[in-house]
Amino acid sequence: MPLPLKEICSIVGKKHLSTAPEDLHCYSFDASKMQFRPEAVAFPGSAAEISEIVKLANRERFALYPRGSGSGMVGACLARDGGLVVVTNRLNRIIEIDADNMVAVVEPGVVTGDFQKASAKVGLLYPPDPASLPFSTMGGNVAMCSGGPRAVKYGVTRDYILGLEVVLPTGDIVRTGTRTMKGVVGYDLTRLMTGSEGTLGIFTSITVRLVPAPESVRTLTAVFPKIDDAARAVAEILKNRIIPSTMELMDQATIQAVENYLHAGLPADAEAIMLIEVDGPDIVLDGQLEKIGQICQSCGASRIDAARTEPEREKLWQARRSISPALGRIKPGKINEDVTVPRSKIPALVRAIRDLADKYNLIIVCFGHAGDGNIHTNIMLDRKNPDEAKRAAKAVEELFKIVLDLHGTLSGEHGIGIAKSPFIEMEVGPGGLEAMRRIKQALDPLNIMNPGKMFVPDRSFLEGDFG
Amino acid sequence: MPLPLKEICSIVGKKHLSTAPEDLHCYSFDASKMQFRPEAVAFPGSAAEISEIVKLANRERFALYPRGSGSGMVGACLARDGGLVVVTNRLNRIIEIDADNMVAVVEPGVVTGDFQKASAKVGLLYPPDPASLPFSTMGGNVAMCSGGPRAVKYGVTRDYILGLEVVLPTGDIVRTGTRTMKGVVGYDLTRLMTGSEGTLGIFTSITVRLVPAPESVRTLTAVFPKIDDAARAVAEILKNRIIPSTMELMDQATIQAVENYLHAGLPADAEAIMLIEVDGPDIVLDGQLEKIGQICQSCGASRIDAARTEPEREKLWQARRSISPALGRIKPGKINEDVTVPRSKIPALVRAIRDLADKYNLIIVCFGHAGDGNIHTNIMLDRKNPDEAKRAAKAVEELFKIVLDLHGTLSGEHGIGIAKSPFIEMEVGPGGLEAMRRIKQALDPLNIMNPGKMFVPDRSFLEGDFG
Repeated sequence: MPLPLKEICSIVGKKHLSTAPEDLHCYSFDASKMQFRPEAVAFPGSAAEISEIVKLANRERFALYPRGSGSGMVGACLARDGGLVVVTNRLNRIIEIDADNMVAVVEPGVVTGDFQKASAKVGLLYPPDPASLPFSTMGGNVAMCSGGPRAVKYGVTRDYILGLEVVLPTGDIVRTGTRTMKGVVGYDLTRLMTGSEGTLGIFTSITVRLVPAPESVRTLTAVFPKIDDAARAVAEILKNRIIPSTMELMDQATIQAVENYLHAGLPADAEAIMLIEVDGPDIVLDGQLEKIGQICQSCGASRIDAARTEPEREKLWQARRSISPALGRIKPGKINEDVTVPRSKIPALVRAIRDLADKYNLIIVCFGHAGDGNIHTNIMLDRKNPDEAKRAAKAVEELFKIVLDLHGTLSGEHGIGIAKSPFIEMEVGPGGLEAMRRIKQALDPLNIMNPGKMFVPDRSFLEGDFG
Repeated sequence: MPLPLKEICSIVGKKHLSTAPEDLHCYSFDASKMQFRPEAVAFPGSAAEISEIVKLANRERFALYPRGSGSGMVGACLARDGGLVVVTNRLNRIIEIDADNMVAVVEPGVVTGDFQKASAKVGLLYPPDPASLPFSTMGGNVAMCSGGPRAVKYGVTRDYILGLEVVLPTGDIVRTGTRTMKGVVGYDLTRLMTGSEGTLGIFTSITVRLVPAPESVRTLTAVFPKIDDAARAVAEILKNRIIPSTMELMDQATIQAVENYLHAGLPADAEAIMLIEVDGPDIVLDGQLEKIGQICQSCGASRIDAARTEPEREKLWQARRSISPALGRIKPGKINEDVTVPRSKIPALVRAIRDLADKYNLIIVCFGHAGDGNIHTNIMLDRKNPDEAKRAAKAVEELFKIVLDLHGTLSGEHGIGIAKSPFIEMEVGPGGLEAMRRIKQALDPLNIMNPGKMFVPDRSFLEGDFG
């Protein structure tokens, strides 16, 4: 059945509905590079319009796909079963930043980086910092419960979302949560919605907790000939009551890839480089940085560089920031998994991944957030090579088994969407999946809100030849 | 229909099932002092036994009431509709404290204070600190999402619960969440369960995040002739990037009650006394304490006392700790509401409460957590005086309207249970309540898990003549 375009048009206005082929093309992708073409794209301008669209979708039984900037990694916003993409980018106002109460209210289309800048202007920090923050939106970040390097100290998106206005799959507009840290009135719909990947509603307003911006930051890099020593250093630092704001790890394959790209003199024989940052009151940071240096040294670091100024800091970050372009030179495509294990298990994970790479004759590059055990595992591949793609798919499945054996999780930041839909049950079990399915069914009885995700195993991502 | 005692007995064993009148009496109360007598009390010893009981309850259609220590304030664990109380206190092992990953796994019957002590022994802190922590259990704390004075800096229970093993209302045993800070695989069942007040399942294992224990603590009290000045001081302290671990406020009625009880020379004419603590690295604390003192002074504090030693600290806490016994001398009963407003609204709230007290000729005493706006509002009354009780009930309803007008919440810490069931819809709206009801129905289709709470308005608490 075709979409009731006339009715949709009468809700959002002609200017804000498109069926132009170029729009349908643009809105058929996200950062996963999978492609599913919608029938139309709407750009509603208010919660009331979104509510009308949702009610219409229930009446006429068509699928809705809420979407921010489309920077997600797992196809969670793609129009898998046809239907209407609902883009929230016109709802892009920062409604208020209430500095006295350290609370802000934003619309879902606000770009996260813009919101961080606006908060910084009044001395406040919105800590979640996914790599996509220059273009990803607050709505998308909440839908996916985005993380980032700072999570070891500051937590993830869910730790900062106090309340939501959300259009439920029935079209009801409800307010969840509070403007306060405390609040225990009824079920925690706010956190249920956070990370629900657009399957339980469309956010129209987001109430956010902020924290005071730290006074200063200090940065250090340490080269570890042995990766186990790097992991020991992480544990020792935390044991010394220092919680760095960032502890980034590059494994040997990453170091080599970056060195081939940058020619900056990185030690290609080292198993790990760590980039560690502390933030907080100026008076404690030099002491903390010195202590971290000592700990790294006593754990076997062969070289330590500290930055005290912004240019020095930029220099230390250069290698970390060069990972993505460096990887692009190795192979045209990659499967970027964001598995997460208890941090003491990182060496075991990295060793197991080395074995996997050997077994399946693949290049696998690991880097990521050592403080919270979130290791981005990049299986490099050319999707035009069907044999390599098949080996990569096998390696992914085996990787997930290894991660669960290490008491980890399949996804620390990216979510399920389409890409991980075949594997969700491995982690949450049949009982957990059934409970989630029942919640979905209870709140979205006609399954109009972002259908075909999470509960519908789909191997497009592993077996597609895109990208 | 009577309970199938034989079958229950064959699951838990004769020793662990009671219908003795004294047990039924003991387990008919919680800290709300409402009374609902169960038909029997079971003390299961494992998740498997609990699962069997839950399956039996579905087959035979009887009600289950999960219960920890019964220290809740709203009747959430009471056997409102007859049935079986399920006490988790035999599941009382700390399974592990993994210091390297700062994660612990505990059973629900572990007493929160005991767990804090065990964590402290390895240099770690479990921050949530409800006043009941010497006897309340981790399971109860998770079910109610307990708070405490430290929330301003550290957050509440939900901020520390990483994962759960839970027996769902169908009897399925599922594992939710992760052992890591990050994890976005499916809906956030962990946070949906946290604060669900025993209506969505019975926890059998709790995975908890810990933080490094702070090196030191410093304490200060400040007397404010004007309560607005106290609120300004709170905002100024936070603006100066100092996040105290505690900012406790006593209003004038509290000061007078405590002074009448203690005779410690408290200034009965002051509108507010604040007790402020900072914790963290020793090197910053003296500077922070001095800065806090300066801020309080410049905001109009008439007297400041600082503690640097433990005995000095104890002395400053004496007044705060004497509130409960002091209130007991005013009237035999009280309605203790834990409303919460954005902290800048505290003066407006306290003034509105003064007006309420005048209007209804009641003694209302306010104290609580100024940092997070959580003000314990104690309406003192003699429940044997029906006229006073009626006036108190009216004052409660009006208080809730005031709080919502100030963008606050009816409950920061205590929850809904029976006591606030008539008012939940005021805050979450019909759409929000309907969504919660649907979730309840989806997960507990036969309504056997803690029925008669949250969704069933019951005025027992306001109109009962207990306590």
